Amino acid sequence: MTSLKDLEHGTPFAERHIGPRAGELSRILDVVGVRSLDELAERAVPDSIRDDDLVMNLAPAATEAEALAELRALAARNRPVTQMIGLGYYATLTPPVILRNVLESPAWYTAYTPYQPEISQGRLEALLNFQTMVADLTGVPVANASMLDESTAAAEAMTLVRRGGKSKSSRFLIDADTFPQTIAVIETRAEPLGIEVVVADLTSGLPEGDFFGVLLSYPGGSGVVRDHSELISEAHSRGTQVVVAADLLSLTLLRPPGEIGADVVVGTTQRFGVPMGFGGPHAGYMAVRKGLERQLPGRLVGVSTDADGAMAYRLALQTREQHIRREKATSNICTAQVLLAVVASMYAVYHGPSGLKSIALRAHRMAAVLAAGLRSGGVEVVHSQFFDTVRVRVPGRASDVVRAARSKDVNLWLVDADHVAISCDETTTRAHLSLVWEAFGVAADVDAVDSSTASMSDIIPEGLLRTSDYLTHPVFHTHHSETSLLRYLRALSDKDIALDRSMIPLGSCTMKLNATAEMEPITWPEFSGLHPFAPAEDAAGLLEIISDLENWLAQITGYHSVSLQPNAGSQGEFAGLLAIRAYHRDRGESARDICLIPASAHGTNAASAVMAGMRVSVVRCDDKGNIDMDHLRSEVAVHKDDLAAIMITYPSTHGVYEDTVREVCSLVHDAGGQVYVDGANLNALIGLAQYGRFGSDVSHLNLHKTFCIPHGGGGPGVGPIGVREHLAPFLPNHPLQPLAGPKTGVGPISAAPWGSASILPISWAYVRMMGATGLRDATLTAVAAANYVARRLDAYYPVLYTGEGGFVAHECILDLRPITKSSGVTVDDVAKRLADYGLHAPTMSFPVAGTLMVEPTESEDLAELDRFCDAMIAIKAEIDKVAAGEWPADDNPLVNAPHTATSIAGEWDHPYTRAEAAFPDGVSSRPKAWPPVRRIDGAKGDRNLVCSCPPLDAYTS
Amino acid sequence: MTSLKDLEHGTPFAERHIGPRAGELSRILDVVGVRSLDELAERAVPDSIRDDDLVMNLAPAATEAEALAELRALAARNRPVTQMIGLGYYATLTPPVILRNVLESPAWYTAYTPYQPEISQGRLEALLNFQTMVADLTGVPVANASMLDESTAAAEAMTLVRRGGKSKSSRFLIDADTFPQTIAVIETRAEPLGIEVVVADLTSGLPEGDFFGVLLSYPGGSGVVRDHSELISEAHSRGTQVVVAADLLSLTLLRPPGEIGADVVVGTTQRFGVPMGFGGPHAGYMAVRKGLERQLPGRLVGVSTDADGAMAYRLALQTREQHIRREKATSNICTAQVLLAVVASMYAVYHGPSGLKSIALRAHRMAAVLAAGLRSGGVEVVHSQFFDTVRVRVPGRASDVVRAARSKDVNLWLVDADHVAISCDETTTRAHLSLVWEAFGVAADVDAVDSSTASMSDIIPEGLLRTSDYLTHPVFHTHHSETSLLRYLRALSDKDIALDRSMIPLGSCTMKLNATAEMEPITWPEFSGLHPFAPAEDAAGLLEIISDLENWLAQITGYHSVSLQPNAGSQGEFAGLLAIRAYHRDRGESARDICLIPASAHGTNAASAVMAGMRVSVVRCDDKGNIDMDHLRSEVAVHKDDLAAIMITYPSTHGVYEDTVREVCSLVHDAGGQVYVDGANLNALIGLAQYGRFGSDVSHLNLHKTFCIPHGGGGPGVGPIGVREHLAPFLPNHPLQPLAGPKTGVGPISAAPWGSASILPISWAYVRMMGATGLRDATLTAVAAANYVARRLDAYYPVLYTGEGGFVAHECILDLRPITKSSGVTVDDVAKRLADYGLHAPTMSFPVAGTLMVEPTESEDLAELDRFCDAMIAIKAEIDKVAAGEWPADDNPLVNAPHTATSIAGEWDHPYTRAEAAFPDGVSSRPKAWPPVRRIDGAKGDRNLVCSCPPLDAYTS
Repeated sequence: MTSLKDLEHGTPFAERHIGPRAGELSRILDVVGVRSLDELAERAVPDSIRDDDLVMNLAPAATEAEALAELRALAARNRPVTQMIGLGYYATLTPPVILRNVLESPAWYTAYTPYQPEISQGRLEALLNFQTMVADLTGVPVANASMLDESTAAAEAMTLVRRGGKSKSSRFLIDADTFPQTIAVIETRAEPLGIEVVVADLTSGLPEGDFFGVLLSYPGGSGVVRDHSELISEAHSRGTQVVVAADLLSLTLLRPPGEIGADVVVGTTQRFGVPMGFGGPHAGYMAVRKGLERQLPGRLVGVSTDADGAMAYRLALQTREQHIRREKATSNICTAQVLLAVVASMYAVYHGPSGLKSIALRAHRMAAVLAAGLRSGGVEVVHSQFFDTVRVRVPGRASDVVRAARSKDVNLWLVDADHVAISCDETTTRAHLSLVWEAFGVAADVDAVDSSTASMSDIIPEGLLRTSDYLTHPVFHTHHSETSLLRYLRALSDKDIALDRSMIPLGSCTMKLNATAEMEPITWPEFSGLHPFAPAEDAAGLLEIISDLENWLAQITGYHSVSLQPNAGSQGEFAGLLAIRAYHRDRGESARDICLIPASAHGTNAASAVMAGMRVSVVRCDDKGNIDMDHLRSEVAVHKDDLAAIMITYPSTHGVYEDTVREVCSLVHDAGGQVYVDGANLNALIGLAQYGRFGSDVSHLNLHKTFCIPHGGGGPGVGPIGVREHLAPFLPNHPLQPLAGPKTGVGPISAAPWGSASILPISWAYVRMMGATGLRDATLTAVAAANYVARRLDAYYPVLYTGEGGFVAHECILDLRPITKSSGVTVDDVAKRLADYGLHAPTMSFPVAGTLMVEPTESEDLAELDRFCDAMIAIKAEIDKVAAGEWPADDNPLVNAPHTATSIAGEWDHPYTRAEAAFPDGVSSRPKAWPPVRRIDGAKGDRNLVCSCPPLDAYTS
Repeated sequence: MTSLKDLEHGTPFAERHIGPRAGELSRILDVVGVRSLDELAERAVPDSIRDDDLVMNLAPAATEAEALAELRALAARNRPVTQMIGLGYYATLTPPVILRNVLESPAWYTAYTPYQPEISQGRLEALLNFQTMVADLTGVPVANASMLDESTAAAEAMTLVRRGGKSKSSRFLIDADTFPQTIAVIETRAEPLGIEVVVADLTSGLPEGDFFGVLLSYPGGSGVVRDHSELISEAHSRGTQVVVAADLLSLTLLRPPGEIGADVVVGTTQRFGVPMGFGGPHAGYMAVRKGLERQLPGRLVGVSTDADGAMAYRLALQTREQHIRREKATSNICTAQVLLAVVASMYAVYHGPSGLKSIALRAHRMAAVLAAGLRSGGVEVVHSQFFDTVRVRVPGRASDVVRAARSKDVNLWLVDADHVAISCDETTTRAHLSLVWEAFGVAADVDAVDSSTASMSDIIPEGLLRTSDYLTHPVFHTHHSETSLLRYLRALSDKDIALDRSMIPLGSCTMKLNATAEMEPITWPEFSGLHPFAPAEDAAGLLEIISDLENWLAQITGYHSVSLQPNAGSQGEFAGLLAIRAYHRDRGESARDICLIPASAHGTNAASAVMAGMRVSVVRCDDKGNIDMDHLRSEVAVHKDDLAAIMITYPSTHGVYEDTVREVCSLVHDAGGQVYVDGANLNALIGLAQYGRFGSDVSHLNLHKTFCIPHGGGGPGVGPIGVREHLAPFLPNHPLQPLAGPKTGVGPISAAPWGSASILPISWAYVRMMGATGLRDATLTAVAAANYVARRLDAYYPVLYTGEGGFVAHECILDLRPITKSSGVTVDDVAKRLADYGLHAPTMSFPVAGTLMVEPTESEDLAELDRFCDAMIAIKAEIDKVAAGEWPADDNPLVNAPHTATSIAGEWDHPYTRAEAAFPDGVSSRPKAWPPVRRIDGAKGDRNLVCSCPPLDAYTS
């Protein structure tokens, strides 16, 4: 009889997370040719690294209810008080309709990066709205579709103006009145690139000397609003390009940076409805003047047309990116913050220009009255001109004031012993002003002070009141009722295929289930309402989650220490390489700057190495896709004195467990180098082997892959790094939060101490609910599923690479090159045709051009695996018809794919039927997910770059 | 300059709730022919009732953020402890994937009752799953798609067996071992029908005498499990039909009632994942043996085919219902509990039969070990055979034990001074058992007791262990991973048109926005985790919400007192009429039993009157749709001695402000009758006039219409009643909760003291955020929108009725009868054709056959109003083509509507194009909502009644 103890547990979460039921798994294993998952492990994973006695010291798996109860208890230990700290993070009201229908909607958060634009038109439109919003508000013409945060955006702007300018200088100037975390992140970024950062007080002009660029803050970090036009003119006259870090909300009231000459404008859109969340994730932004658009890092959405001439959106200028330009890329940025950018853009759509202006006015007026009240009580307010932040001088009393405010549940910012800063925002009330006054010992009546406070035109410097229009596009004027916005959100998401309608078998992206129980906590106010620079005790529950997760990830990977600060995989790579760099320099071996990277590597690797001040040397791969060991040996020998590191991915980006990995590590170690293993493919390893134990020194992990943080349509990502003990002193840290990293660390690489802290409960819950056994089962089920797909499809599309035993790891590469050669049908055609079958395409042409890489993950059940395989097989039959001449090469369901409902209902002169086009796998009880547009012309869009909302008549033409 | 006080408030919620922007409203008013909303009020609403100085004493409107903060504070005052009270309400775990993707998904909760089956296939399939689940588990062949709660289901079963049987007896027998609230609800129902209820201990057989029916509980209300087969045989041999109230979860272990001869089985599906929520809403169920299916009250989903021969679902046997049979209907039930039935059915889909059985086993085993531990500590356990509930005898100590348990945050049930009952459930843990033992003063080790506790076969009576299969249909075996269930839920909801994709302009249904801020609280654990019979202090916050809402509804309607107990409009009608009945009897005028009902009334009115023991006399309407005053006068004169009441709707069901309403009230009052005004159309009156002040004595309100509780695809509804002071002593009350109503009350009409308490925060939030001004603006905007539609469409479809000034109220009736006569095109054709336009049809053929009734509500903006009007005008042009013979009468886009994607992609031999069929209004940026099936043959389905899931091959045939 089952014991009560076992009965008590209920259905294990792992059974819900893992797709195939026991019976289905048997059928999968039959096809794969093994009798059990354990046998699969033995045969697929090399003995040299496989650890059959691997112990991950994790608590027994909790059920969903138990984990949620623990999270509620942890949440109750947080203290989300009134946050008036400012410094780039402000309380904001997420409109409930956006909260529920974006942040809490699987249709939005489980979507992938819009690389298949035909089935991503919804989020592309939302991102175009975002770009339009940023461009309009900043007054420069081109904005990208989000940066990781304001500080990294500023650092990227530094490298952009260096790259895009003509100055020979290697010095970058920063206005001292800039947020401290931004200065620190720029310094971390500048050092390996040989850029000298000069921080100076610019109130009386630019300092002497050449600078390739200057960063001004607007308003200043202190809150003061100054007219920067003269500084900008002076800079331009000296050949110095100007980056302005601007508060986007303030630009509804202030003359925009573009109108006073800024070359680049950066900042955050956090206060546009995105919760503070203890630091992130939020969407940073970057916008540039004409002429710099092709230098923009990150994602840029552009407008093009589809095969029927209809307007269509897609990512523009992808040729700038790392997967194409590798070490010559403009940046290592890969992930964006799409989900948060969507929220911010919808906030603007919902409020419209006049609503945003009212919100800005409220924050401003609260600050104005706050300042007036303080002055009326004899307290010195430092600046008379400000937007929403008041700096107050209270010699020797600052700590006391901050403490007094805390006793009233208000957090202020302790600038130094003599100064306190107070920021107002959308949520500030008159009652808050009274509390702040009380903390300063001032007694005043709000309404009385209000009636005697100067008007905005007296508080904003002359000539800086905004006169130009913004957000004039109809989309910002149409959806101001909740019903209308609800329908707009639904309509957009219906254009996209996310995990709620199809498997997304994207090789290297691990699009697994993002369970609701994991997602629930992130919108609880106890997590979302924390300011990243609030005292640590306010976040006691979240800090315990962070600490648990660091420990668990160390247990899983075999590393000594983990830092959760990097808020994207690319940032993790950068942080890991910085640790290696610092380690060598600490040992007096600063000449070590060569980073070996196999030809098969993800392009981001090379770009990150360059950012970390390294030179890249490429190691060849053999015809099986594995590292060419002879070439590696010769490279190691050549670089024995300057070898800094090797950067590999394991299992490889070819989806193979290379059995030479221990040897690779030893070779590099013996030559004095460090080993960086990219953890992108960790989902194929958990419970089987550990990076930290087979020779790697440092890895970044992608929590948005292996650990269930959803891809959000192209971000947020989280890229923590794990290191062995000798590298632990060189993890990131943070100037405003000593708990966030070692004193000896490399500095901050993200704006916030723990990066995207508010989404870490997702991964915490995943590990907590899976337990060690569940995690290992997930790994092996993912590997089994990939091998199942490989076995079923190999006869149709040869599987390009396998390991020694003929097994792939968690993904497989299907080689279409011979098919393309014989039939003319390309990977693009197959990918687009899959959309007609209601499926999202696999990864195209990565890591090998002309191939598709399929990663099914453990969450897909047999029915969905078969739906995909059946579709691929049916497509092969279609290809055969083309090859046989039954269908012309230029008019067949593949080259014409995808087919829209409009095209099906219209005139038809193709040699195949409408039903063959639209219902190639017959009618199912599942509603067809129609592609909203046909094949998009990417090149045309790049030639005629349009990257803000086109006028309405464009939609009808 | 705007004052800080005004700035502080931010965007008023009313501006989000009300669709038309200020500029749009001007255009609407232009078309309507008035200059302002106030002028509209003056001209549309009769002077005789309009109160221009009407004051609703409500607090100033709160913003969304403020209301949510208040609700969080109120929630914090609730105390959702471990609930082991039982009595039909059990803690349960709502799978998070169901919580988020059904209960928190607008696609599910904003849908309407599936009267348009072609665009309701998703929820119809979910309901068919529900019926299959209930039928399988109960062992009788036909189940309906939910009842309001277990107690009302039992009462309905009583009337069903009386109706469906041959017994001449008017006595109904109830096993004394039945939940007390069920006995009480049955008694309330029986009395006006002249049924004598006998409650008796049946352990030694049936008492003497004739009974038309008997209700047995299985397990008993005390928890004991007895074999009822002999009682049932005996009953049948006496011509007595048998109703069994069964715990659905227990039926996974116990021999089902159908196998021991039950005629009718009733109960609740609450513990299938639906939160207790302080009493509701939950889906009750009713299932019947073969031969009684056509007697079933409420909704029954059946299987039929569409015009292309594809399987399709729709509501079956609607001819039984009130809107057709009026006072001869089988029941007054109108609303069901669709949303909760969907949750319960998905719980079964997700867990499958073996998962459900595990959950039942867990509850059972916990109870078994609990009992064994108590016995081991010398405590007397009353019954040795039970499922999940243990009754304990502790002479004189029961209160102390219950108090001791409460001190450990566990609620037990105090049966009487000597007995305590403890129920176990899915959430019970070993730790809970220890706490309960401690409360009894027993020290025991759970695992030790477990190992020595008898097995189930010794605790369940011999022959009562279930041997038959259940839930064998594949749907209960397919979606056991979260990914799979997520996709199933998405696929189903994509087949339905809800408010998130289209206006639902349903006359008399007021399908307005259900704002997210209103919806958020209902899934907070502080509300959802409360047991309805827990001590009132555990629900302090919710009781304050209830009290506020009662007061506010009184303020709004001008009544003295409000009861929130009725959990549907029909229940409100019944409660209101009972109050009138009781009032007359209390005054010694029990002969007054005539209820006058105008011909235009909603059919439910008549059915409710019959239930309340009244005889119905119909008052004619004149050709303008108004009450024929001469006929009324004569009816009043005829019935001056036996007139109980008149039951009218205001504004009328014809959507008109009748100006005679004061006179009607006076006439009836003068004759000694009471006035019941049906509040279905209250949305046209708030802020303009008040029922309680122009002559009505009692009304029910529909919170799911005027007060934003979503329709949930066909329920839940909430139907509180308001009464003038003289009727207040006759409001409902509750045997287990004295706070729920007056001692002199008419008894309970719902199982729970405050009915569907957990959704009352929705209406609370609506009123709190709208304030008096917002509510009045909403009313007038709704009236303006209806008049706008009437003005725009009158030239195409004559508006049937208007008031004196030529205005309609909040809805308008479009007369299609002349069109049908001249062209053959019916209201059905137009309704189905609207689906091709992506729109939900208006109300069809109510209150006048051959017409459409349109109620746009205040939440639709001008663009959506115009989309609807434009579609209707385009459809008129299509009709004209048919009338002109351009298209044949039997082959045109109207008669063939709706068109599926499959039909568009298939062969085509119609005289109109595919594009005309599918994109009649051209291509829009909004994705088309394709109807999943073509026109459904309703009659065929009724002839061949199939109302559980058909085998899989039926889907492919």
